[in-house]
Order: sequence, then C-alpha cells, then structure tokens
Amino acid sequence: MQELKDRIVREGKVLPGNIIKVDGFLNHRVDPTIMVHIAEEFGRHFDMDQVSVILTAEASGIALAAICAQRFNKPMIFAKKAKSDNIEGGLYQSDIFSYTYKKKVTLLVNKEWLSSEDKVLIVDDFMANGEAMRGLCDIVTSAGATLVGIGCAVEKGFQGGGDRLRAAGMNLKSLAIIESAEPGNIVFREDD
Amino acid sequence: MQELKDRIVREGKVLPGNIIKVDGFLNHRVDPTIMVHIAEEFGRHFDMDQVSVILTAEASGIALAAICAQRFNKPMIFAKKAKSDNIEGGLYQSDIFSYTYKKKVTLLVNKEWLSSEDKVLIVDDFMANGEAMRGLCDIVTSAGATLVGIGCAVEKGFQGGGDRLRAAGMNLKSLAIIESAEPGNIVFREDD
Repeated sequence: MQELKDRIVREGKVLPGNIIKVDGFLNHRVDPTIMVHIAEEFGRHFDMDQVSVILTAEASGIALAAICAQRFNKPMIFAKKAKSDNIEGGLYQSDIFSYTYKKKVTLLVNKEWLSSEDKVLIVDDFMANGEAMRGLCDIVTSAGATLVGIGCAVEKGFQGGGDRLRAAGMNLKSLAIIESAEPGNIVFREDD
Repeated sequence: MQELKDRIVREGKVLPGNIIKVDGFLNHRVDPTIMVHIAEEFGRHFDMDQVSVILTAEASGIALAAICAQRFNKPMIFAKKAKSDNIEGGLYQSDIFSYTYKKKVTLLVNKEWLSSEDKVLIVDDFMANGEAMRGLCDIVTSAGATLVGIGCAVEKGFQGGGDRLRAAGMNLKSLAIIESAEPGNIVFREDD
C-alpha cells in the first residue's frame, strides 16, 4: 500500500535495536484518514461479507480494529493482556512473549464473545516476531472458530513472524513489509 | 443518552464490588454502531470545530476515541500506560492509581504529539474514581494545551470521580451516570 509506505518513509523513525517507530500516525497518535484507507485495503483483500467478527489485541491494535469494525459494520473484540479483576472465569487464553515489555503476557478473550460459529478476521497495526498474532490464532482455534485471515498494517519482514505464519498456511496480508531499516533508508519487500 | 442506558440495563452485568460490566458492546467486544452514536452525542455537546485533538488512555478508551476521531476527522492520541522500550525521552507523565489493577500506573504522552497550541477533547469509555481522567487532565496542563471538555460514555456516579471533576470546573459530559447498581436494578442519574 503505497500511501502507508510513503508515510513510513516520511515520518517513521529508526531507533537502535531494530525499532521502527510510526507513532505519529499509527500507534500513539492516530491519523484516522490513513486508518480508514488501511481498513479499505483490507476490504479489497478479504471477503468482508464472510467475516462475523474482527479480533485484535490490546493496546495498539485497537484503534485500527475499531475503525475496520466501523467501516465494515462488524463487531470487534480486543483480547486483553494479563489478568484484571474485571475478568472472571470462562476465558480463552494464550501465553505470548512480549518483546516490547520483555516478559510473558497472557491474551484473554471472554468465551461469551467468540464461538465456533464465528468467522474471524484478525487485525493488528504491527507485527515483528508475530507473537501477538500467534496468540490470537490460538484463541480462534480454542474457540473452534474459522480464521478468515490476518490483516496487518506494518510487518517487520526481517524478524520472521509474518513468514512463519505464511509458512503455516495462514492468509496473511501485510500492507507494508519492511525488509531492512537504517536511519534514512527503509527498504520494503516487493508487493506480491 | 437513552440508547446507551437501555443497552446497560439489557446487557450490563453487576458483579460483587460494585463492578458493572458492559463488555459486550463497550470495552471488550465493541459494537461500532453504538460507538458512532456515542461519538455523535459528544458532537452535540462539544464544539468539535474547536477541537484539534482527541485524547484517551489505553486500553479500553481507544476504541471509542478512534471512532470519535474518524467521525470528526481529528487526530487521536492514546496515553500509554507504564514504560515500554519503544518510548524514549520527552514525555508528559502523570501517575494515577488503577483500581482495576490495584496498582500505580503512569500515563505517558510523547511531547511531540501534544503542544500548547492544542485544544483537547478527552474521551473515555468508563469513569469510576476518575483517576485516568485526572491523569489525562494533568497531561493537558503539562502540555500547556487547552482542555475543551471531557466526554465519558458511562460514569459510576456513586464513586464520585465525575463529581470531583465537575466541582473543579471541568466541562464533563457523561452519557449515562449510574447512581446505584444491584443485579436487576441499575438506577441512572437524571439528565441535566
């Protein structure tokens, strides 16, 4: 998606440790215009009529997933991280490793909101090692639901998470795949 | 807002400890239709032409704030909680007490995204003790920005957070204020 790649080149910052910050429009400050365009691009790739629910993980996936939900008039679920007192029993759970926080976190979805009848589109803003995506796939499997596909805005291709999901047969569409990133030189994978 | 009150009565669950769960449409599973209606209700109460940015706190405020941002074509910022490696220096910070997690958390906003030029509408899905709102107000003050108002979907009136903000002169609009909640009997404050 050229508009997204242009924004990454123009506004993205490359920090030590292969961290690519796009927090001016995607995941701290959110520009709703590009979010709607990303949602529409997902709509061109996935059959949204088939989707019954959009699933993401808190926190930074929520903005994009909410705008997708609104654009296609679907309910959206965000998996919660860790355990709060506001979530009682009856949960789908998946343990993942958060490279951001350098610790294990548990993704939780209340069983009330996801069933074997559901056809799920997973949406996230960012994928590096793909741990959050793997956890969300686990939860879809635990629910006996059907995974329609995975839509990701920005994938760090060089960290392998996306390619592992593709190798496992997942219908994953990332709108900008970063192959390498140095200050002033961000290289994208060619579109398929 | 009658539609919101009706949904709370029909789908809300009252748990021990004065916990009111509305996670079927507001803050775990998200119904985009009512989110848009809530955004439009904020649009009737606040002068959106005057607002330059919408501010919320992760995680559960993000869905509503994103849909408000999209509806009124404004950028949205979500304050992050705690410190991740992806946030370097140059932060507005406010320490709040999270009753959900029973610990202190720090709200963080990168100084790059909020300035003294900004006219801020704070939006959140839920208010009980008002700690998150207080922290967001702190951040607006730290930035030297102007606070246009605070839009809240559901306020637990009996916990006093909203009334403290009103007493401090804040332009706070909550669309459903719960005065008391027992299973099968949720009482709302009369609209002003």
